[in-house]
Amino acid sequence: MKRAKISNNVIRRLPRYLRKLNELAFHGVDHISSGELGKQMSLTPSQIRQDFSCFGEFGQQGYGYSVETLRSELSTILGMKRSYSVILIGIGNLGHALIKNFGFDRYGFRLLAGFDVDEAIIGTEFSGVPIHHANTLQNFLQENPVDIAVLAVPGNIANSVATMISDCGVKGIWNFTNIELAIEKPDVLVENIHFSDSLLVLSYFLSNSTAKLEDEPEF
Amino acid sequence: MKRAKISNNVIRRLPRYLRKLNELAFHGVDHISSGELGKQMSLTPSQIRQDFSCFGEFGQQGYGYSVETLRSELSTILGMKRSYSVILIGIGNLGHALIKNFGFDRYGFRLLAGFDVDEAIIGTEFSGVPIHHANTLQNFLQENPVDIAVLAVPGNIANSVATMISDCGVKGIWNFTNIELAIEKPDVLVENIHFSDSLLVLSYFLSNSTAKLEDEPEF
Repeated sequence: MKRAKISNNVIRRLPRYLRKLNELAFHGVDHISSGELGKQMSLTPSQIRQDFSCFGEFGQQGYGYSVETLRSELSTILGMKRSYSVILIGIGNLGHALIKNFGFDRYGFRLLAGFDVDEAIIGTEFSGVPIHHANTLQNFLQENPVDIAVLAVPGNIANSVATMISDCGVKGIWNFTNIELAIEKPDVLVENIHFSDSLLVLSYFLSNSTAKLEDEPEF
Repeated sequence: MKRAKISNNVIRRLPRYLRKLNELAFHGVDHISSGELGKQMSLTPSQIRQDFSCFGEFGQQGYGYSVETLRSELSTILGMKRSYSVILIGIGNLGHALIKNFGFDRYGFRLLAGFDVDEAIIGTEFSGVPIHHANTLQNFLQENPVDIAVLAVPGNIANSVATMISDCGVKGIWNFTNIELAIEKPDVLVENIHFSDSLLVLSYFLSNSTAKLEDEPEF
């Protein structure tokens, strides 16, 4: 599988395409042109063709894209058919929300177990997912190959947990703590969801647009 | 407040700078050079100087940046001193997590109230935040100016709620639903947290790095 270096911006658009295609499929649309897709996603048709051309030729001149084919290709590209195994570390409110509402299996992931230190939930199941004691995590990782760990622990232990699980062979960390993880292993991938970064970007734009409205009546 | 058009990538780095500066302040660091800051953030010093130069001159030649000054400037730029009012719509597990763990006030936001339809929690308070019935939302918005609404409702009602609140004057929507909102008002800002997009990007990189290791032994 040889690919030219693909920009981060293109990669981050792929899940958005998939969401749109899922929506189109849900509404019974079976083909769509790059023009119409662009219109619905506020992208130019040439941007869309360029994005997809990084991965192959999915459309047909004058016929557009088959929604089903494109969905399937995107699922493959995004690793959704690899059936990655996932564990969830830290079952607070956010962990709860992820187990109950996120639907890992919808995206092809297998959520094997959750880990916490709260005796009240250890030994129980949430939506069919068993919750184990955090002190059994290392053993679990030795016995079960885990591809991705979802990190939803308190910030003060985020780095020590991240180091331990990457020492145990976890290759992907989905990080919900507000901490920038310092992991020494170059082959461990970290994807962050920093809630505060997102809210502050909204606040920036809000503050900037207000400033504009108030201070720049000429525009 | 006149500013040249600033790229989205620069804006999205600002909260990251702030997080790093908070960490430095916590550890008692009072000055830092762009070189050292760059090293700690995996950015080049010139990138950092260029980012900050979009907003003014914060550093002194040979002296570096004052951590306190830079924190304060970034807080201003990010709108954190405007004391924006916030409401939270949808108090499921995720809403719970946001009220209890996020700490809106830490970033200068005032979380006024939460809204839900679950009779069991209406009339109660979570971490001092009153929970009202969703059918009182429109009235609430007419009586209380709300800058930002956090949308954590089920996907099937996301668009109707978003339309209603933007009709009532809400200017910023922090969208946790997995739906791309279709709001007709150009002055309403939407910032999305699409959990699945983030996990799929991790899965892409994981799948791609494995492919590389397996299929391209020459590198």
